Amino acid sequence: MAGSSPASFQPTPSSIPPPGAIDIHLRLPPGISTHKQPLNPLSFLLRAAQIYPNKLAVAHSDVKHPVFYTYGVFAQRAQNLAYALIQAGIQPGERIAVIAPNVPVIAEAHHGVLAARAVICPINTRLTVPEVAYILEHSGASLIIVDHEFKHLVKDAKVPVIVSNDTGRVGCPYEAFLAEGRKFSQERGWPGLAWEPDEDSAAALCYTSGTTGRPKGVITTLRGSYLAAIANAFETRMNPESVYLWILPMFHACGWTYPWAITAAFSAQITLRTVNVSQIWYHLLKSGVTHYCAAPTVQISLLNAPEARSVPRPVTTIVAGSAPTAKLIEDLEQKGINPVHVYGLTETYGPVTKGYAQPHWISLPLDERARYMARQGFAFLTSEPVRVVYQPKEGEEDLDKELVDVPKDGKTVGEIVMRGNIAMKEYFRDPAATKKALQGGWFHSGDLAVWHPDGYIAVQDRSKDIIISGGENASSLAIEQELATHPDVLEVSVVARPHPKWGERAMAFVILRTDAAKRWAGKHAEFAADLKRHARSRLPGFACPEWVQVVEELPKTSTGKIQKVELRKIVAKL
Amino acid sequence: MAGSSPASFQPTPSSIPPPGAIDIHLRLPPGISTHKQPLNPLSFLLRAAQIYPNKLAVAHSDVKHPVFYTYGVFAQRAQNLAYALIQAGIQPGERIAVIAPNVPVIAEAHHGVLAARAVICPINTRLTVPEVAYILEHSGASLIIVDHEFKHLVKDAKVPVIVSNDTGRVGCPYEAFLAEGRKFSQERGWPGLAWEPDEDSAAALCYTSGTTGRPKGVITTLRGSYLAAIANAFETRMNPESVYLWILPMFHACGWTYPWAITAAFSAQITLRTVNVSQIWYHLLKSGVTHYCAAPTVQISLLNAPEARSVPRPVTTIVAGSAPTAKLIEDLEQKGINPVHVYGLTETYGPVTKGYAQPHWISLPLDERARYMARQGFAFLTSEPVRVVYQPKEGEEDLDKELVDVPKDGKTVGEIVMRGNIAMKEYFRDPAATKKALQGGWFHSGDLAVWHPDGYIAVQDRSKDIIISGGENASSLAIEQELATHPDVLEVSVVARPHPKWGERAMAFVILRTDAAKRWAGKHAEFAADLKRHARSRLPGFACPEWVQVVEELPKTSTGKIQKVELRKIVAKL
Repeated sequence: MAGSSPASFQPTPSSIPPPGAIDIHLRLPPGISTHKQPLNPLSFLLRAAQIYPNKLAVAHSDVKHPVFYTYGVFAQRAQNLAYALIQAGIQPGERIAVIAPNVPVIAEAHHGVLAARAVICPINTRLTVPEVAYILEHSGASLIIVDHEFKHLVKDAKVPVIVSNDTGRVGCPYEAFLAEGRKFSQERGWPGLAWEPDEDSAAALCYTSGTTGRPKGVITTLRGSYLAAIANAFETRMNPESVYLWILPMFHACGWTYPWAITAAFSAQITLRTVNVSQIWYHLLKSGVTHYCAAPTVQISLLNAPEARSVPRPVTTIVAGSAPTAKLIEDLEQKGINPVHVYGLTETYGPVTKGYAQPHWISLPLDERARYMARQGFAFLTSEPVRVVYQPKEGEEDLDKELVDVPKDGKTVGEIVMRGNIAMKEYFRDPAATKKALQGGWFHSGDLAVWHPDGYIAVQDRSKDIIISGGENASSLAIEQELATHPDVLEVSVVARPHPKWGERAMAFVILRTDAAKRWAGKHAEFAADLKRHARSRLPGFACPEWVQVVEELPKTSTGKIQKVELRKIVAKL
Repeated sequence: MAGSSPASFQPTPSSIPPPGAIDIHLRLPPGISTHKQPLNPLSFLLRAAQIYPNKLAVAHSDVKHPVFYTYGVFAQRAQNLAYALIQAGIQPGERIAVIAPNVPVIAEAHHGVLAARAVICPINTRLTVPEVAYILEHSGASLIIVDHEFKHLVKDAKVPVIVSNDTGRVGCPYEAFLAEGRKFSQERGWPGLAWEPDEDSAAALCYTSGTTGRPKGVITTLRGSYLAAIANAFETRMNPESVYLWILPMFHACGWTYPWAITAAFSAQITLRTVNVSQIWYHLLKSGVTHYCAAPTVQISLLNAPEARSVPRPVTTIVAGSAPTAKLIEDLEQKGINPVHVYGLTETYGPVTKGYAQPHWISLPLDERARYMARQGFAFLTSEPVRVVYQPKEGEEDLDKELVDVPKDGKTVGEIVMRGNIAMKEYFRDPAATKKALQGGWFHSGDLAVWHPDGYIAVQDRSKDIIISGGENASSLAIEQELATHPDVLEVSVVARPHPKWGERAMAFVILRTDAAKRWAGKHAEFAADLKRHARSRLPGFACPEWVQVVEELPKTSTGKIQKVELRKIVAKL
């Protein structure tokens, strides 16, 4: 492909077909029953291109050359990408690495890579060169699509690298690559491509963030991606009038299948190269945004931005990563933003449970309602119900042993386990880890939780986040939840710190609200005492923080999750 | 089961579990992968019972003893039914015939029969004794559940018959039957039942109305029913606040999968033993109804009822059976009822396409907008795209021949064909008919249509409804559409009548509006002349009706479709 003259990548208006004019039937292999079409999330884009070719699909405006793709153009680009990959020698099942922020290229790769029957492997842009090298090596990716800002991450790559300048214009190597594909797509269209006959084939290979040890590669399937995307669209009531704003990185668990969910609902999506609160508020106030996903920490910074005001159109925000506090729920609702609390992991295609609201909650005082809303709920439309089960004791693992539910008493801590169509297929090239994760026929999340009598689940912690103080198990999440009710606390994170008498005790890292920070300047010890008093009125003694440190910021992952592993490093040095 | 003392069938309030308290995991056979749960629409009721046990599921009030079932109770009844069937010796895959109007019994049978891994075979209550006997014989049904009003239809049945008095009370044989099951369900719950391991197993066996020849038995699958139900809920935006009113009979194509779709969306449903306009208007005005399905003829009688007024809550009505006219669309919208035009057959689980509105339609004059809205649209979320293909000439059928699309010119008439997950599996015990219907790998609907340049399809007629006049093909539907624009016409149906010169010519049967009927009393010839003048201004000469007959009513099927076969019998006698 090198040296080819990049042709105009974008169909001219006259070449955009009217609704229904394009043939969207991919070639089906013989032997597929008339009534059993292999599920594939690619079908959503095909439908959108057929029914709403002139509807806005993608808007990308925080760049020098903004682009606005209709579904007709977006689908055409995905098709061009598929042909380009096939021309580059990509065979079904091969992995295509994509390293990019939330730009149109990664959105279209979620469709184009699948159209080539390849597997998308999105890589976190915040990783280091050795981390990326490990993933490229482990995934065996045959080709890399990389955004120009991150090409240093793959400078030693041994496979072809296609750089995107994120211009959507002639002169961009990625556009030249698409142009190679376009030669074939013009002639052959969708019927020139083959439909993957096995819906259990891999759709994506996403690496877990792996705070300890090597990241693991999660294999999700076409069937699972199809059903998870439908669930996400249905559970959050997306429709053709919806506008989804990308805050959550698409490289994180394939953006929780939203690249496909948005398309299934014929919604529009706004991609943001640089996620910052000003940009987000601009779109919330001016672009008709109706949906976005973000962790509570991101929500908090949004609400504390000077631009924050009531949104002109009702917005649904999908909150995951940790439980929203009462304060956060109240602040969001006051701005016209309706929080939906979901829970999941990369291994469950992102969200797999939702905090389904009970009708009577609406009449409860906010504090009480927030307590309910902070719980993890029940499984999604297309998932199987989740359970909380007794964890095997260390050394007593029995892979075939039947799992036993903890009592629904709101007290007994167990592990959340899942199964069904939106649970992962396997860890790539790691049968031992797969076997361990799927013991007893259920995926073991590693998240500890209690099961309440009303069936809702409350995540306590990752196993390693539990603070064992004088033989008592204290949930760092529960402590954070209570500390966050202090009026001066903007954000808080709690980890265990060794204690000579109790074994461990909680240490809290706190960001103060702007006004409070001024008030407590030079008086952090007084604030610490005040916060501890607050804690003692709400928590058992063993769960009260022994140490409080005021900080300017907290270390976070790309999805806005606080990295407790970094806090533990700080603690270790104390 | 005979002679057993009917126990109280309904859990007492204290026995209704709180959300999440019940274990809804059915027994999975060994060998099912953790990540591949066999799809089954039963999962929707299980979720509803787990998440919203205290939410209204079914309201049935037009009877002496109204019943209101929560999802907890509704699911419990379905479970009782499953155990009762198993105790009665029903094996997986056996057919259970259900003959009932829209009462709770048939709603719960859609779940309970599946929970016993049996196949539901709903039978039209309007059939004659020999017709029912044929279906019972052909389906090989092992057991019959029949509403007391229709027990004469099965008086000679050779298999056990359970009669429901539709009281939901002690003393009803059906309730006694449930009580038999309840003995086991109390002890074993859902985990005592087995999950069907093969999602390609039959869910239902529905017999087509078969205006000519023997009715054919359509086998639909668990996978298809699951995906069709999701599509129906998603496409019509049902949610937990929705209230669905049953007008469409559940015995018709399993109520287009709405028994499952309603449950998937956690909506409430109102069953009506006797469908009449007063009842319907009562619920539209007083019960918060948000959704109902009905053919245009039913819609017309609704709108012409004295009770007709604006609805207090926005209503979505799903219109199928024939195309809505401009007048009908206008009248519905003026009442606050938003029509969604869908199209399908028993062989496609009911609706499979939807007239997806284009954004610019809203600004078109009503007449033009109605013309677009009257077209059949594009395939549902979980269907494959439909096509219009050249029909094989009589005697030239080649079962393996590749199908060729007609041009998208809005003129060339072809046959609508479908495939994918919401197309039937087969005609039961009729491999020859199955092979013919599925020739070329597509299901052949028998419906003739043109394909417009914008991709929308307009059904012209069933093959036999085309009027061949002087060598020209006239669509009876197109003629009806134009005659309906005459201000005095309430309903009209057109069939071919032999003509000495032209071979055939159109004959119109017309119901006049109430006021017009008075005005034209004794002057039907004058009205006929007026209508013909109206036709000549809008239709080509060969399509204008040669004969116009004013009638009091038109013969209709149970779904409100006009029975042209009856009109043809009248014509034959002229």
